This record gives sequence, C-alpha cells and structure tokens, in this order.
Amino acid sequence: MMIGDDVENGNLGPYQDRPRTFPNMRSKTYTPLIFRILLGINVRVLVILLLLGFGFVFYVGASTSPIIVFVLSVCIISFFLSIYLTKWVLSKDEGPPEMVQISDAIRDGAEGFFKTQYGTISKMAFLLALVILSIYLFRSTTPQQESSGLGRATSAYITVAAFLLGALCSGVAGYVGMWVSVRANVRVSSAARRSAREALQVAVRAGGFSALVVVGMAVIGIAILYATFYVWLGVDSPGSMKVTDLPLLLVGYGFGASFVALFAQLGGGIYTKAADVGADLVGKVEQGIPEDDPRNPAVIADLVGDNVGDCAARGADLFESIAAEIISAMILGGTMAQRCKIEDPSGFILFPLVVHSFDLVVSSIGILSIRSTRDSSMKAPIEDPMAILQKGYSVTIILAVLAFAGSTRWLLYTEQAPSAWLNFALCGLVGIITAYIFVWITKYYTDYKHEPVRTLALSSSTGHGTNIIAGVSLGLESTALPVLVISISIISAFWLGHTSGLVDETGNPTGGLFGTAVATMGMLSTAAYILTMDMFGPIADNAGGIVEMSQQPESVREITDILDAVGNTTKATTKGFAIGSAALASFLLFSAYMDEVESFARESFKQVDIAIPEVFIGGLLGSMLIFLFSAWACSAVGRTAQEVVKEVRRQFIERPGIMEYTEKPDYGRCVAIVASASLREMIKPGALAIVSPIVVGFLFRVLGHYTGHPLLGAKVVASMLMFATVSGILMALFLNTAGGAWDNAKKYIETGALGGKGSDAHKAAVTGDTVGDPFKDTAGPSLHVLIKMLATITLVMAPIFL
Amino acid sequence: MMIGDDVENGNLGPYQDRPRTFPNMRSKTYTPLIFRILLGINVRVLVILLLLGFGFVFYVGASTSPIIVFVLSVCIISFFLSIYLTKWVLSKDEGPPEMVQISDAIRDGAEGFFKTQYGTISKMAFLLALVILSIYLFRSTTPQQESSGLGRATSAYITVAAFLLGALCSGVAGYVGMWVSVRANVRVSSAARRSAREALQVAVRAGGFSALVVVGMAVIGIAILYATFYVWLGVDSPGSMKVTDLPLLLVGYGFGASFVALFAQLGGGIYTKAADVGADLVGKVEQGIPEDDPRNPAVIADLVGDNVGDCAARGADLFESIAAEIISAMILGGTMAQRCKIEDPSGFILFPLVVHSFDLVVSSIGILSIRSTRDSSMKAPIEDPMAILQKGYSVTIILAVLAFAGSTRWLLYTEQAPSAWLNFALCGLVGIITAYIFVWITKYYTDYKHEPVRTLALSSSTGHGTNIIAGVSLGLESTALPVLVISISIISAFWLGHTSGLVDETGNPTGGLFGTAVATMGMLSTAAYILTMDMFGPIADNAGGIVEMSQQPESVREITDILDAVGNTTKATTKGFAIGSAALASFLLFSAYMDEVESFARESFKQVDIAIPEVFIGGLLGSMLIFLFSAWACSAVGRTAQEVVKEVRRQFIERPGIMEYTEKPDYGRCVAIVASASLREMIKPGALAIVSPIVVGFLFRVLGHYTGHPLLGAKVVASMLMFATVSGILMALFLNTAGGAWDNAKKYIETGALGGKGSDAHKAAVTGDTVGDPFKDTAGPSLHVLIKMLATITLVMAPIFL
Repeated sequence: MMIGDDVENGNLGPYQDRPRTFPNMRSKTYTPLIFRILLGINVRVLVILLLLGFGFVFYVGASTSPIIVFVLSVCIISFFLSIYLTKWVLSKDEGPPEMVQISDAIRDGAEGFFKTQYGTISKMAFLLALVILSIYLFRSTTPQQESSGLGRATSAYITVAAFLLGALCSGVAGYVGMWVSVRANVRVSSAARRSAREALQVAVRAGGFSALVVVGMAVIGIAILYATFYVWLGVDSPGSMKVTDLPLLLVGYGFGASFVALFAQLGGGIYTKAADVGADLVGKVEQGIPEDDPRNPAVIADLVGDNVGDCAARGADLFESIAAEIISAMILGGTMAQRCKIEDPSGFILFPLVVHSFDLVVSSIGILSIRSTRDSSMKAPIEDPMAILQKGYSVTIILAVLAFAGSTRWLLYTEQAPSAWLNFALCGLVGIITAYIFVWITKYYTDYKHEPVRTLALSSSTGHGTNIIAGVSLGLESTALPVLVISISIISAFWLGHTSGLVDETGNPTGGLFGTAVATMGMLSTAAYILTMDMFGPIADNAGGIVEMSQQPESVREITDILDAVGNTTKATTKGFAIGSAALASFLLFSAYMDEVESFARESFKQVDIAIPEVFIGGLLGSMLIFLFSAWACSAVGRTAQEVVKEVRRQFIERPGIMEYTEKPDYGRCVAIVASASLREMIKPGALAIVSPIVVGFLFRVLGHYTGHPLLGAKVVASMLMFATVSGILMALFLNTAGGAWDNAKKYIETGALGGKGSDAHKAAVTGDTVGDPFKDTAGPSLHVLIKMLATITLVMAPIFL
Repeated sequence: MMIGDDVENGNLGPYQDRPRTFPNMRSKTYTPLIFRILLGINVRVLVILLLLGFGFVFYVGASTSPIIVFVLSVCIISFFLSIYLTKWVLSKDEGPPEMVQISDAIRDGAEGFFKTQYGTISKMAFLLALVILSIYLFRSTTPQQESSGLGRATSAYITVAAFLLGALCSGVAGYVGMWVSVRANVRVSSAARRSAREALQVAVRAGGFSALVVVGMAVIGIAILYATFYVWLGVDSPGSMKVTDLPLLLVGYGFGASFVALFAQLGGGIYTKAADVGADLVGKVEQGIPEDDPRNPAVIADLVGDNVGDCAARGADLFESIAAEIISAMILGGTMAQRCKIEDPSGFILFPLVVHSFDLVVSSIGILSIRSTRDSSMKAPIEDPMAILQKGYSVTIILAVLAFAGSTRWLLYTEQAPSAWLNFALCGLVGIITAYIFVWITKYYTDYKHEPVRTLALSSSTGHGTNIIAGVSLGLESTALPVLVISISIISAFWLGHTSGLVDETGNPTGGLFGTAVATMGMLSTAAYILTMDMFGPIADNAGGIVEMSQQPESVREITDILDAVGNTTKATTKGFAIGSAALASFLLFSAYMDEVESFARESFKQVDIAIPEVFIGGLLGSMLIFLFSAWACSAVGRTAQEVVKEVRRQFIERPGIMEYTEKPDYGRCVAIVASASLREMIKPGALAIVSPIVVGFLFRVLGHYTGHPLLGAKVVASMLMFATVSGILMALFLNTAGGAWDNAKKYIETGALGGKGSDAHKAAVTGDTVGDPFKDTAGPSLHVLIKMLATITLVMAPIFL
C-alpha cells in the first residue's frame, strides 16, 4: 500500500490514514488490457503499426468518399491535439506530497472500481451479443437485403460486430474521461496555490482532452465502420446494397454505446451519490463538520465517486449521445435521399460526420482560447471563471454557426432543390437557438441569482417539509418551458425541412424529418466544448476536495470553491443539452424504427394508433417503465447511502478520537462498501430497461398472432417507446432541475442568506440537497441514456417483434 | 360570536378562545339559497310539490322505458333510506358543551369556506356556460342532428342546461358530504365515550348517508335528463333523433360535474393540507406538542380542512366519477347497439343506470349490516373496526356480483348473440377482481404491516434525506403493479367483449370497447359502500380532533385513534378505486370523443397517429400539463403552509402563555389565512387544466388549416388527452402511494418502533408525512378529477378543434 508506507515515515498532518481494506486498490496504476498490450509493444513497432493502420483507414476512406477522408483527417488531427493537451496537463506539478497521497488514494479507488464495473459490463455485453447473434441468425431477411445479396449470417455478424465495437468505444470513452480526471485533479489543486487562472486552465485543458477524445472517437468509429462496410459489401456497385441503406447497419454501434453508457451511468451515479449522501448525512448534518473534511470516513469514497460517476459516466453518456444522433441522422438522410432520388446521396448521409468534425475544430479553438496570460494572472488574482468559460463558448458558437452554414452549402446542396441547403442551415440555427434557450431556462431554475431558487431557499426557513414540497414543485414546474421550446423547435425545424423544396417521386414534400435531424445536429454542433465544460466540473470539485483534505490555506480553498461553484452551473446546463438532444434523437430513431419494421414486415407501417387498446397499454407500460426505473435508481442510492451512514456512525462511535484528529478514519471500508453496493444495485434497473421492451414486444407479437393482428408487437413497442420518451424527458427534467435547485438553494444559504451555515434553514436545505443528489446525478442522467437505449434496442431487436 | 359569549360565563378548560377574526363564520348555520327556499315553504305545500314532482318524473320515465321507472324508484327509496340514516345520526347526543363548542367552530369554518368557495366556482361555471353557449350557437351541426331535426340552438341549450345541472348536482353532492360530516363528527366523539362500536356505527351511517345521496343523485340526475330529452325530442319517432345518439347529449352533465369537482378538490385539498402541514411543522416538529393539541393555533383550521377537503371534495369527486363513467358507458352502449343493429337498444344504453341502482341497494344492505349489537359492545370494548367494515364489504360485494350477473342477463341479452350477456357478466367480474387487487396493492404499499412501509420507516433512522429518497422511490415503484393490473384487465375485458358474438353489419366483432365499459362498471358496482368507507375517514379524524381538543380521558382517545387509523387505510384504498376507474372511464370517453369528432367532421377519424410530429407534440404537451398541474397544486399547499407556519410561530412568540395553557391561541386568524389563500391558489391550476386543451386544440386547428392538415387540431387534442391520461394515472399513483406510505411510516414509528415518538427517526418520519400531505390529499386526488375533466372538456369543446 503506497499510502501506508509513506505515512509510517512521514510527518504529515492528521488526515493520514492507512487504508486497511481497499479491496480494489493496488499500488500500481490499473490500465485496461488493451492499453497494456499497446504499451508493451516496442515504440518503433507501434509507430509502424499506427502508420499502417492510418494508411489502411485512409485507403478505405478514399475508396468510399472524399468526405470520409476529410472526417478522418480532422479526427486524427484532433487526437494529436488531445495528446498535446494531456502532455501539457501532465507536465504540471502535482504539488506537495500530502496532495499526492490523497490523489493517489482517489486514483486507486476510481481505477479499481472502473475495472470491476467494466468487467461486469463487458460480461453482460458479450452475453447480449450472443443473444443478438442468435436472433439475427434466425430472422427473415428484408427485400433490400435480398436484393443486395446480404445474407442472413453476414447481417448477423455485422450487427454483432458493430454492437461490440460500440460497446468497446463507449468503454474507452469512459476510461479516458476518468483517466485524465484522476490525474488532473491534483494538478488543479497544486495550480490553485499559484493562481486561479492557471487552475482554471489546467481543469479546462484536462476536460478538453477527454472531450476531444470522446467526440473524435464517436466520429471516427462511425466513419471507419461506414467505410469498411462500404468497401467490403461493394456498396453501390450493381446487384449489391444501395448506399442509402448502409446507415441502418450502424445501429448496432449505437446500441452497444448506449448499453455500456447505461450501466456506466447507473453504477457510477449510484457510487458517487451514495458516498456523497452518506458522507453529508453524518458529517454535515449530525457532526457539523464541513464537506470534504479529512475526519469524515466517507470522504475518499465521495471524491472517488466524482471521478467514476461524473467523469467516466458522462464520457460514456456523451459518446453515446453523439453516436446515436449521428446514426439516426444518417439513416434519415439516407431514407430521404432515396425517396427524393438524389443523384449523389453521400452528402446527405455523411453530413452529421462533417458537422461533428467541424465541432472538433471549433471546440478546439474555444478550448485553446482560454489561456493563462501571465499579466492577467498578476493584475487580478481572482477573475470570474464563468465569464472566461462563457467567452470561450461565445467564440466556439460563432465559429460553429459559420461552419454549420458552410457544411450545409457543401453537402446539402442539390440541383433538385437549390435553396434546400438554406432551409437546412436555418434548421441548424433553430437547433443552436434551442440549445441556448435550454441553457438559459436551466440557469433560471437552478441558479440562485433568480427567483425560483431564492423562493426555494426561503421555504427552507419554515422547515424540512416545506423545503421538499417547494423543491418537488419547482422541479415539476420546470418541465413546462423546455417542453414548449422543444415543441416549437420540432415544429419549426420540421416545417423548414418540409418546405425545403425536396419532394419524392409523387411530388410530396419529404424533408420534414431530416429538418428535425439537422436541428438536433445544430444543437450538438458545439458538443466538444460543452463536454469540456461538463468535465471541468468534477475535476474542479475533486481539486477542491484535495485542497480541503490536505488542509491548504484559506486563499487556495477560495479559488477551488469558486471553480467548484462554476462547475456546478456548467454541469447543470449541460444536462439541458443532454436531455434536449435525447428528445430529438429519440424522435428520429423512432422514425428509423418504423422504416425498419416496414422493410422487415414487407407491408406499410406508417401509423401507431393509440386508439387501439393494446397500443394504449403499450404506452401505459412505457411510461410506467420510466417511473419504475427512476424508483430503482433512487432507491439504490438511498439503500447504499444508509449502509454508508451506518459505517460512518460506527467509526465515529468506535473511534472517538477521529473528531479530535487523534485517530484515523478507515476510508477504505467506505470505498469498499460503496463499490460493491453500486455494482450490485446497477443490475436491477439496467436489466429492467433492457428486458422490458423485448418482453413486451414479444408477448404482444404472440397475442397479435393469436388474435389476428399482424404487427401488433411492433406497434405496441412503438407506442411504448414514444410514451417512455415523453415521460422520460419530463421525469429527467424534473429530477435534474429539482436536484440542481436544491443544491444551489443550500449554496445560497451558505453565502450567509437566511441565517447562513448552521441555521435551521441551512439544515433543511441540506436535506433538500441530499434528496436532490440521486435525482440529479443518478436517476436523471441515467434517464437520458435510457431514452436513447430504448430507441436503439427497439431498432436492433425489431426482428423479435415481427 | 357564539363561542365567545359562552366562554365568558363558562368554566371550560384552557383550550377556550374567543375567535377574533373568523371572517366567514357566523353564529347561524349557513344554508345554501336553494335549501333556504325549500325550507321556507310550508311543509304541506312542499309535500304536494314533491308528490307532483315525483309524479311528473315518473310519468316522463314511464313514457321512456320501464327501466327508467325502476331506476327512479330505487333512487327515491334510497333517498328515503338516507333520510332515515341522517335522522338516526342526528338523534345521537352531541356530548358535553366543550365538544359542542369545538364542533360549532369547525362547522362555522367549514360552512363559511364552502359558501365562499362555491360562490367563486359558480361564477366561473356561469362564465363557462356562456362560452359553451356561444360556441354551440356558431358551430356546424352533425348529419345526425340534421336528420333528427335537432337545431343548432336546441343543441346549444341542451348542452348548457346539462352542464349547469351537472355543476349544480356536483355542488349539492359536495355540500351534502360536508353537511353531514360537520354534524356527525361531534356525535362520533360523544359516542366514543360510550363504546367503540357505537362510534363506528355513527361514523359509518353518516358516511353512508352522503354516499347514498351522492350516488343516488348522479343516477337520478342522468335518468331524469335522459327521460326528459327522450320525451321532449320525441326520440325514436320517425324523422327525429335515434335513441342511440341520445347519450351524447348528456356529456355536458359530466363536464359540469367534473368542472365543479376539480375546483372543489383543488380548493378543499389546498385548504386541508396547508392547515395540516402548517400545524404539524410548528406544533409537532418545533414545539413537540401532539397533533390536534388545543394549544396549536392552527388546529381548528386543520379540523375544518378535513371537512372541506376530504368530505365535500370527495363527495363532488365521486359524484363526478360515477357520472362520467355512466355517461361514457351509455355512449358506448348506444354506439355499439347501433352498429349491431340491435332491435331494442335501451337495455345496452340504460345498463349503467341499472348497475348503479343495484349498487345503491347492495351498499345500503352493507351499510345497515354494521349494527351496534348491544351484547357485542359489552363483551369486547374495542374490536377491530377494520374487520367490521371488511365484513360489511364482503356482504356488499357478494350481493353486487349476483346483482351484476342478473342485470347483464336482464338487459344485455339479445337474440343476435345469445351468450353475449355471459361474456359481459365476466367483464363485470374482471372489473370487480381488478378493484380487489387494486385495494390489495394499495394496502401492500401503504400499510405498515408490509415490507415497503417498514423499509421506509427504517430509512427514517438515517435522517430526513434518506426518508424522502426512500418515500419517493416507493411511490414511483408502486406505479408498476397497478399499471400491469389495469393493462391485463383492459385487454381481457376487451377480449371478452370482442368475442361476445356481437357483430356489425359486415360481420366484424364490435363488443370490445363495451366490454371494457362493463368492466369499469363492475369496478364501481359497490361505489356507494366504497364512498361510505371513504367518508368514514375524515369523520373519524375530526372526531379524534374534537376528543383531543376537549381533553377527554385516554380511553376515549384510544377509541378515536383506532377509528382514525382505519379511516386512513380506507381513504388510501378508495383512492385506488378512484384512479382505476378514472383510467378506464377516460379511455372510454376517448373513444366517445373520436366518434363525436367523426360525426362533426363528416369524415373518418379512427386513428391517432403519434408518428406525426404535431401529434407527438400534443402528447408531450399533455404529459407536461400533468407535471405542471401537480407542481402548482403542491406549491399552493407549500406556500399557504408557510403563511400558516409564520402565523403560528408569531402567536407562540407574542403569546408565550399559550404553551402553559394560560393564554388563548387565535384560531380564527389561521382559519382566515388558509381560507383566503386556498381560494386564491385554486384558480391557477384549475384554469390551466381548462384552458390548455382548448388553446392547444385551437392553435393546431389553425396550424392544420394553413398547412393543409384537416383534423390536425382534433388529433393533437386526442393525443394530448391520451398522454395526459397515462401520465396522470402514473403521477396520481405515485403521489397517493408515497403520501400514504409516509403517513403510515410515521404512524409505525409512533407505535414505538425505531425509537418511537420524539426520536430522530420520528422527526424524519414527520418530515416525510408533511411532504406526503399535499401529494396524497391535494395533487393526487385533483389529478383523478383532472383526467376525467380533460376527457369531458374535449368532448364538449370538440367543435372548437374542427
């Protein structure tokens, strides 16, 4: 144990501890197998392998489309940039040994949990892959497949391979997010001893690294898959598959990504919030010690949680969001291009990849625009970090609008409808504006500068009960404006697409759905920068914890506190993006599902009529799924937190010296409890989400078979999906906003309002914050992933329902 | 002021007070205008008028159908029975003067609030009547109307008259519920001094009185309207309306009833829970005095709340449930009879009226079976009242099954499908079983004999936060089983109806929907007994309050405590009925809406396709409406409770002698605060519920007009309605169950578990109970009404959307 050995001889402060039972912690940093193999290879061999790989990829890309070459180049450049960023971050000093020790304990805990968690997830993924394989080997083929000569077995292997690749990439995205955050946290703490600006820059660049890797990997993965399939299957050559059908083969990738993201988010979310709630309930409420106090036995578990819950899980989540959105938009682009008989449909199909390539470029510029100018750090020691991040965001968004308009002109110009690209550019603008308004609404409901949180804080002064009632009402109310905004943007983007001039053979306008897709892409056109700001949050939070635990001077804590507060705001706003894009992406995947069913069933499937009792029941079950899933996610946190509370109480009783700094708390036991509990607890809700659409679809298929309703299973699943999406959006908005508002109401009181820290109002506000924790960081974000997972699972599992 | 004057000379205990500002309380009992006119008439004149009225009604009924005569006779007999019950209850003594004084204060408060509240509601109802009138005067007529010679003006007057009659009856139902409860409460308290059995009997008979009046009024109102329209419009004579179209004219009655019920439930629910939460937060949590302690300045307001919130509102609510269910079943019966060309369709149309007539008969037997046998009260002073009520329920339900089977044979036998009646009888059985399972599930989740509430109580021991998280999870989870049960019962009832042998001209089976309707009737076939048990709750609760405030001996309190606990269970279980029947009734009204739109639009309207973006958005808005409505209902309680908390705290500070019984609390100010606040707060959510479907339907109608989508408005409203129904069911289940479970977790701890009263776990449990109050008694029940109100408003307002 590296901490222990050091402590024996050191002269460190009273926070030291010899973790006796860190079951998953080892003195050597854990590296996943795939990285270890890569690292084991001789550097020269590696370079040669890499060059060969690049060469092959570019060859395949060039045989497919010049657009693919462009996308690949941008991704590779951004990977080099991310290597530069990580080198820059790692070159920063780690500060005094007391910081390093804490950081090491956090790293060990996080990497140990990651290993066990992803071990479980990968086993489940392989199991599911076998299920998918057997389904696809026994399903009937579609007319398109037959005409393209795509056999049953080929189609099965393609789907499974895409699923496994998506799962692997999602896992890597999560690992990268956590890898950098457990290394950056201590460097941010150390930098905070020098200047706020430098600390900000380190945190932003660390976040930027993983953002570029996550987005880049989503884009390059899809691009390589697309190009490989294109060349392998000889697409567009006579007698084989049409290019417009190709995107449907990518669905497995999206499902793999969302499958891993769901469990990553559940496990990580339960971990982080169980530790947080448990630590707060005993530490803050019962013992009255501050957050991240070294005397709290659950504090290391809490800090580990920030990394596995916020960094790793959010990396997997955003990876999956982008993958789902790209794939659904590619499918819709292909379908539309086919209907309109556009001569070269590749522009419409590959448009989303280009949008996200530009996203990488403009976000990189935004990230690099946050510089540590020597003079500014001198003249103003503490600047408003939010203003700096906002400036970077403004740069990014202006460039993104220009790049978006350029991309539409480049790829969506067609002679059949010369002004269509302009309509689609406007769709993108609708998306960008929607994102802006979403961020504004989230801020309005969760920032204590505005009315709602102040009212919530005021309600704390009349007790725990009124605080909870007010928070629940605030959360429920906050669903209204986003729904109105989403409604208006769907209708206007649909209308812009509809009137774009693109018509099918019979002269009917067909661009509506693609317009909605373009709006979604507009919304996510600065995804990498958004993810950077999101990753910034937990890194700053962790840095604050390290500063607190290593008992740095007040001035250093002030700096990390400010960064932490900014991180809370950015975290809340990016959830707005996540839910907005989930809503739109899910609506798009729904259309893809209907097309898919139609081609399997060889009959028209255009309507999902909720006046049919069975279809209505499908909807009822879909909404119920959301409620039950949220229940299980929340109760998992509650149960685990209770275990933590009991353990922490036990330690305070058995070691009365902890409070006087004369005895060491046993951090390791809390880490072990939370780790094993969250692995256990993530299974139930996750399995529910995966099993229920399959079971419902299959049961109603059988029922339909016996009552003479063909396609009943597919219809019921469609209705289940739509109702689940709608309820999921509302529930996630409710949970996220209520949680964020409670958190900030507490922070507002801690600024000294309504009696400040220690007052009764503060105690009530802490209760609210505790309740909000599983809402906003476990159930809420898991619902974002769930919505998209449901959409992809129904697509992949469609053969079962028919 | 009657209390004040008495107190001057009396030698009563320290709870006495001279209420200085009971603005709506008068020494004379308030009686609504209509009753005062009736009471002002000479008794003989009244009898003659009554006889003439009966004669006329029977004449009209006899001209319509012998079934109507049967229904009228049963209703009138049950009215006489209810008069007997009320005489019996009123003949009981009111106990010592200290009880009477408290009871008088409660009555004055309740009647004062009722007057103001219904004044506001009736103004809004008249306004809405004008709106409906103008819409119907300018709308186009349907082919049916034209063929039957029903002019535009006639149709407008009929709808408005039905609306106003429904609103009036709903108001009377509410008044009756409250009238008896404010008189029975003190008599139950007084009887509790003698024996538990007698107290139970008084409470049950008082509840039974209002249950019979409420159900009877719903049935007789519809029967009279139906018969009047039948005779007036010359139905079934050549060239005029067909009898199968007649039930659609009754929709206005259902809308009027649900309109009044919505505001009654909102206003009453806010009143009762704001007072309760406010009283508990300061009394129980801060000052540590027991519930209903005379030293608490908000205690009278709390007791008044039980009457206006639970009795009056629940009366209006159940009245509306039964009316909506009867009307929707009549519409479906008519439609089906027409499609199947059944020779005498009146059996199918009037079936629901007969079911509820038998309901009155069997429930009366059940109510009367609870007797105060002299010997039993001697040998066992405290029996389990729940067992007694259950025994009565078993009697009722066995008779109901027999009566139901008999009714199906009598009315639903047709030579076209000789075994159809048997299928429908089985549908009824499905409904009865569903109701039973619903009750069982509700008990499982809310009774502390079972696992969930015990787990919830255990989570209180780790703090306020974990208690709330566990309660929210429990509530969310509890939606799963009822949804599965509802799904299975809809499918099986539909299937039973479908295979009943009834076919339309082209040979397609058509009985499916009617089967669902019959199942709903089965579910509500013991409605009067259910309502009796429901009304029993607040009466017992009030009696307990009076006993506590008049400081009766411990033994008396024990009896009322037991009755109160039973009342809590029955209240929770009847909510299960309410939500189950709301779900089914709403699904039926949805079908009626589609038929209505079809006949107006003169084109086929069979499908609501959620794959159309606008229709999907309608659904999103519908679900959002539920969230926003719940938010506003909860926050209204929270805000008002905060006002109460401040006032109570002020009184405790300004009059320190209150705690030592040396100074009098000012009960009146709390009553005044709660009354004016709840009148103010009920408007916003109520207006939202009424305005939003109209606005959405109209906007999308206009949008559809300009984008070339006919019927877009109607489709969007249909989808809004369905999504709102689904979300509303789930949200109501969540709110009701979470609230009930919190309440009972607290009660479980109060039995001595986990540290008992005064422990930290108890404090956390009180917080949970406080949060649950607006959930289970304001937002939850208001959602039941909202769901049906939405269904009726879309039916009545359909002309706007076309």
